[in-house]
Amino acid sequence: MRTRAAVAFAAKQPLEIVELDLEGPRAGEVLVEIMATGICHTDAYTLDGLDSEGLFPSVLGHEGAGIVREVGPGVTSVAPGDHVIPLYTPECRQCKSCLSGKTNLCTAIRATQGKGLMPDGTTRFSYKGQPIFHYMGCSTFSNFTVLPEIAVAKIREDAPFQTSCYVGCGVTTGVGAVVNTAKVAVGDTIIVFGLGGIGLNVLQGARLAGAGMIVGVDINPDREEWGRRFGMTHFVNPRDVSGDLVQHLVALTDGGADYTFDCTGNTDVMRQALEACHRGWGTSIIIGVAEAGKEISTRPFQLVTGRNWRGTAFGGAKGRTDVPKIVDWYMNGKIEIDPMITHVLSLEDINKGFDLMHAGESIRSVVVY
Amino acid sequence: MRTRAAVAFAAKQPLEIVELDLEGPRAGEVLVEIMATGICHTDAYTLDGLDSEGLFPSVLGHEGAGIVREVGPGVTSVAPGDHVIPLYTPECRQCKSCLSGKTNLCTAIRATQGKGLMPDGTTRFSYKGQPIFHYMGCSTFSNFTVLPEIAVAKIREDAPFQTSCYVGCGVTTGVGAVVNTAKVAVGDTIIVFGLGGIGLNVLQGARLAGAGMIVGVDINPDREEWGRRFGMTHFVNPRDVSGDLVQHLVALTDGGADYTFDCTGNTDVMRQALEACHRGWGTSIIIGVAEAGKEISTRPFQLVTGRNWRGTAFGGAKGRTDVPKIVDWYMNGKIEIDPMITHVLSLEDINKGFDLMHAGESIRSVVVY
Repeated sequence: MRTRAAVAFAAKQPLEIVELDLEGPRAGEVLVEIMATGICHTDAYTLDGLDSEGLFPSVLGHEGAGIVREVGPGVTSVAPGDHVIPLYTPECRQCKSCLSGKTNLCTAIRATQGKGLMPDGTTRFSYKGQPIFHYMGCSTFSNFTVLPEIAVAKIREDAPFQTSCYVGCGVTTGVGAVVNTAKVAVGDTIIVFGLGGIGLNVLQGARLAGAGMIVGVDINPDREEWGRRFGMTHFVNPRDVSGDLVQHLVALTDGGADYTFDCTGNTDVMRQALEACHRGWGTSIIIGVAEAGKEISTRPFQLVTGRNWRGTAFGGAKGRTDVPKIVDWYMNGKIEIDPMITHVLSLEDINKGFDLMHAGESIRSVVVY
Repeated sequence: MRTRAAVAFAAKQPLEIVELDLEGPRAGEVLVEIMATGICHTDAYTLDGLDSEGLFPSVLGHEGAGIVREVGPGVTSVAPGDHVIPLYTPECRQCKSCLSGKTNLCTAIRATQGKGLMPDGTTRFSYKGQPIFHYMGCSTFSNFTVLPEIAVAKIREDAPFQTSCYVGCGVTTGVGAVVNTAKVAVGDTIIVFGLGGIGLNVLQGARLAGAGMIVGVDINPDREEWGRRFGMTHFVNPRDVSGDLVQHLVALTDGGADYTFDCTGNTDVMRQALEACHRGWGTSIIIGVAEAGKEISTRPFQLVTGRNWRGTAFGGAKGRTDVPKIVDWYMNGKIEIDPMITHVLSLEDINKGFDLMHAGESIRSVVVY
């Protein structure tokens, strides 16, 4: 079949809207009609050539929602007509990681996914006879895409695609970091560094979990209003702090936070986030993706005196199990998504979405097919 | 009163055995006759001038056992005749840290303890009229010492002083890191870096907890026999590994360890310990004390993919609550101490104990009064 897609032919070039050839689903695979897709910083990171493992030409996009249109042999968990969210972190329920019950980092198809291929080592996309790579196992910047069965989460059919697609990455990453990774308890004090889309979702995750003091930190003063909208109780602009930011935050939180979250990807901020944790038990969780080659550092004394340094990917969520729950939370009003979708674009305008993100003018731009 | 003590008059000088004046216990304090004391690397670290906060002249020593001889006004939890272990990490049961239930790092007397003083801001030791500083709130290199009531753990009277003194630091630090901090479960895979006294106690803690594969790592081949004696199942000498040590350990442990423990104080080893943890859930625990100014580093990707970086002090043990239990474990044969006490010295020979330690010839030297 043919599908309209925004193709990244090379790094640092705008996406090109073209018609691709798409092979149908093989065994264990499903064909999904993508109805909407968010544009995420990770897509931009790859398109900007910052990911040393980025592959071109490829169909980017990993934050989608759509409808199963066809299933390959052996597929049993979804059927045509099912509404699904593609999962860049699949859930096979059979690998050592899935069976451990201790992590969401399923390894079933990691090797091929990292190479831009389906689990059998081939691609389904091609353009004028030349193969086009998949991206993060999703490739949602195509109206139709093929995914492994274990990489789709079936969701309720009354959830709008335009907003629930955000659950495919940003919402789950932020809310999940609080709920699954940190397991924030009622009354806990938290600090969120960076109030972009992920940071706002951490804030609303903390609100949902009943956190007490919820501090947001951002150098952009416009983000204060955004933060307060999603549960932030205190805003700190580092540029307005005279003296050391960590000391300021430790004083503000009476000794440091129970949990801090880095949503910036800046390794210096990651250190501040750790050191702003409470002595004895505070835990800092790295969500942001750092530039290639950058390292985090601290004095080991920070850990010996009881701080914990952790990270999270996809909010610690098991895709097929937890993503449908988060969609339920959205539909039941426990979390909000609609106000975060600041721009809705057509596929033709997808490059505008990247421009808005780079300019810091969007929380989330969504392409609707 | 007067007490015989080994005094550190200055850094990098041998201890001098002298008679000190010792003031009796004030309100909330107890006078303890120290019957035995271990010589720990931390004492050497201070004596060697490596601790930028080290104070002189002082009475070092923090790993003792003795008998309460007198109590000051208001003391209710111990009485003369009680056998006790001094606690450099006290347990007041009233501060924010103690009440949190999440840490053993009681803050009740931290400020004065760090200044070498009793909680009221004075010292009890003096020599020819000049004050001598306390050390780590213990000063067990004195036959008699004064301690806050909250800084002694009452233990059973049938426990020999010569071995149970080791519970005052090394045993609790190693065994506690496994039991209290990591909470190792039956069948878990662990790796211990550095098989000195702390490392051996981590090994026997892992054995006690029912760990499965227990890997020891040391560049000293003589430590293999020591390790196997305390539960180690696999020994790795980095000098015998061709290629990358972390990759070797990850392969040996089928993907990495559930828990790793750094008992070296070397920040490069701390990084190896983190990176030898299993993706998705492995936790590395820093026990060793690093040189002043040294920092730990890693790529944040290590944490984002599910590894946890933590630390522990005094094995996460609440002194008054947990130290008596560990003495019970020793007396009931759950853990061993006797074979680790490689040298027993008189106070006059205390400097030999430091020499043996620096030469790597002792596991633990104990001074018996």
